[in-house]
Formats: sequence, C-alpha cells, structure tokens
Amino acid sequence: MSKARLVLVRHGQSIYNQKNIFTGWTDIDLSEQGIDEAKKAGLLLKKNNIYPDICFTSWLNRAIHTAQILLKELEWEHIDSLRSYKLNERHYGDWQGRDKDEVKNEYGEEKFLAVRRGYDVAPPPLKPNDARCVSNDKKYANIDKKLLPLNESLKDTKKRVLEYYSEQIISKLQEQKTVLISAHGNSLRALVMELEQISETNIVSFEIPTGEIIVYTFDCDMKIIEKNVLIG
Amino acid sequence: MSKARLVLVRHGQSIYNQKNIFTGWTDIDLSEQGIDEAKKAGLLLKKNNIYPDICFTSWLNRAIHTAQILLKELEWEHIDSLRSYKLNERHYGDWQGRDKDEVKNEYGEEKFLAVRRGYDVAPPPLKPNDARCVSNDKKYANIDKKLLPLNESLKDTKKRVLEYYSEQIISKLQEQKTVLISAHGNSLRALVMELEQISETNIVSFEIPTGEIIVYTFDCDMKIIEKNVLIG
Repeated sequence: MSKARLVLVRHGQSIYNQKNIFTGWTDIDLSEQGIDEAKKAGLLLKKNNIYPDICFTSWLNRAIHTAQILLKELEWEHIDSLRSYKLNERHYGDWQGRDKDEVKNEYGEEKFLAVRRGYDVAPPPLKPNDARCVSNDKKYANIDKKLLPLNESLKDTKKRVLEYYSEQIISKLQEQKTVLISAHGNSLRALVMELEQISETNIVSFEIPTGEIIVYTFDCDMKIIEKNVLIG
Repeated sequence: MSKARLVLVRHGQSIYNQKNIFTGWTDIDLSEQGIDEAKKAGLLLKKNNIYPDICFTSWLNRAIHTAQILLKELEWEHIDSLRSYKLNERHYGDWQGRDKDEVKNEYGEEKFLAVRRGYDVAPPPLKPNDARCVSNDKKYANIDKKLLPLNESLKDTKKRVLEYYSEQIISKLQEQKTVLISAHGNSLRALVMELEQISETNIVSFEIPTGEIIVYTFDCDMKIIEKNVLIG
C-alpha cells in the first residue's frame, strides 16, 4: 500500500503578495486569503486520501503556517516536520520589500522581466550592511555566512533546493514514504525543473498555481511513474 | 556558547482537565486557558533567552499545539519538530473519558489513589474492541499493535518514554543542542524520575506544576550540572 510519493504545496497568499510587494526571504505571514487557501489544501488532501508520513518546510512562516493549517484540517498533526532555509523562496536582493510596479518603472520592463523570468539573472544584491540581510536575524546565526545569499537567480535557488532534496528528502522517498513539502513559488519551481527535466527556456513559462497540489509517485529506482495535479 | 540543555514544558490546561475528566491518550485540545498558558511559556523562554534548536512532542494535539503556540510567541518557528506516541500521556485505560469523581466513587478512594499515585498500579484496561482504543485511529496504523497499551502504570509509561529518550533525544544533547520537549504531566514525570534518580516512593509526591518550565544543563558526559525552574 505504502509508496513513495512527493506532495508539493505552494503556500497561500501572503500579505506582501496581496500588496504587490517583492517578498523573497522577508518573513511575511499569510493573509486571510492565504489561511483559507491552506485550509482548502488540507481538505483537498483529505478528499484524495493522502496522508503524508513526514513534512518539510522552509524557514519562512508563510510556508510553516501553510503546513500547520493544512495538517490541522487533515486532522494529521502528529507527523515530524523538518525545516530548512534551503527551501526558502528565491532571494530577491534589493528588490525585497519594494512595490513591484515601482521596481518595474525604475529598472524598465526588459530588466524586470529578465530577472523575474530568466533562469540565471539575479536582481541587484542587498548591501552586506543592509538591515534586510538575514545575517542580522538570529535564526540564521549558525549558518555559514557564505551560504546566505544577498540576491539569487533561479539557478542559484535551484542549487540549494536540490542540495537539500538530495541530502534529506530522497532518503525518505526511498523508504516508500509520502513526503509533503510546503514551500514557495520559486523554490518549488526549481525542484520541479529537476524532477521533470524542464529546460532553462521552458521553465520561464512554468508556474505552480496557488491552490493546486502536485503529487509525484516514484518507483523503486526513484523514477517518476505518475504525476497528479489535485485541483480544489 | 552552545550547550546541552533539556527544556521540559508540560502542556497547558486541556478541555478535559477543565472538566475534571481522565484524558490519557484521548486527543483533547487545549482550553482557552491552556492556549494562554502556552503563550506565557513562550514569553518565559524569551525572557530567559532560551531558543531551542529542536523540539519534541507527543502525538497528542494538546502537546503539539502547546509547542506551536510557544514557538510562535518566541518568534522561533523554524526549528525541526519531531513527534512520537512514546511521549504521549500515561494511558488511563477504562478510566479515559470518565469523570474523576465518578471513578473515585465507583472504585473507592484507596484504589483511586493507588492508580493515580502508585508507581506500578495500572487502571482497569480498555477492552480490545473498545472504541476508545487507538488501534481504531489511523495515526497508529503503522505501529505494532503489541506496543499500543490498553492501560498503563507510571512504570509502563516510563519504559516507553525512556526508550524514546535514548533512541532519539540523547544524541541531540550530545551534539550540544538545546532540546525542547512539550509533553504531559506523567510522561514528563517519568523522564524526570530517571534524570533526577527519584525513587519509586518519592515520585508519588513529585509533580511538575503547569506554567513552570524545567531546564537541565548537561556536561559532556551527559551528567546534569544544573537544574533551573523558570517561573512565569
């Protein structure tokens, strides 16, 4: 009965999403709509009889709370929850906390789209002494400063997401577990890019809609044998 | 700076505590007062500058939610949370879900106190087909049925708590981590009995008051060198 499954949930709307502000590593919580979306994700798993054995999240509260709300709704709160900054959203550098339209006006549409949609184009970095740097946040105090980005392209995000996936998640799938990941638009895109071998060109137009849940089923050789998209 | 510390938090008041009902493995949530107590525990850790590296809880929601509320209050929600039924409250057998005074009247004060305060006296067991058995709960479906109790003495509870402590928790302390355990009056009593080498006679009168937090500090040989009781 038990089989290796990977369940990807993108967090619901955050307060910055709602306000059209670049978020990245800024630790902004879910909006009321986002809370509602997390509940719906829980009901969607229940309807499909999917009960994860373990849960992974980023270190950002919008992903942590999405998982908590979802699991509460599923009446399945007893599973282990492992978290890593390596599942955080893509780091948006100096654009973090800024209004998206304002940034577009300042940098022009071409640069704006290159950063948002290109695979290896990063936004302008934060200055190391910028108050928005996570090196000012004691949660990150034990992480080697060299690993903490000041900005990221999708390529950079993909590197750390895949590191964590290899180090911590694949072994759980090999134990035939159902693994839930609650994370972010870009950290999940980076993972899907690898899982589905999507090209650098094609990833540009790929997006995981909020409210959808992707479920991959693996065979014993960790080959994907099924992809289901659950829609509420 | 980093040192091995064990932080014990007993969950706040549950709805059954409030109603004077035996709870045991019944999965009853916190009362409003219990939620408030969990928030206070978070503030108490903050005041004492104690930020755990990892959190352990039982599988029961009142302990899971106590940890979640506490960590939210501490603004420290990104740590891993590992959970086990082996940290569950003592199993109260056939007394679970029953009014404490009613049980006392039925069984007499002597038997009542022997079960509640004695070290190796168990309450009457649940019948294996009783709807209250956790073998009816799909959370426990993967656990060997022989490990799922129908009743427990404190001695029985201690056995499984110490198993889990040896298997999962000690190694984290050996890594010089600060470990938070959010659990129950009796599962924590069982652990403290071992840590402080309290006798079977003396454990009878030992109780961890709700609202207090016990912090043990260990040396490199896993010997306790300090015990602090934080009081709100």
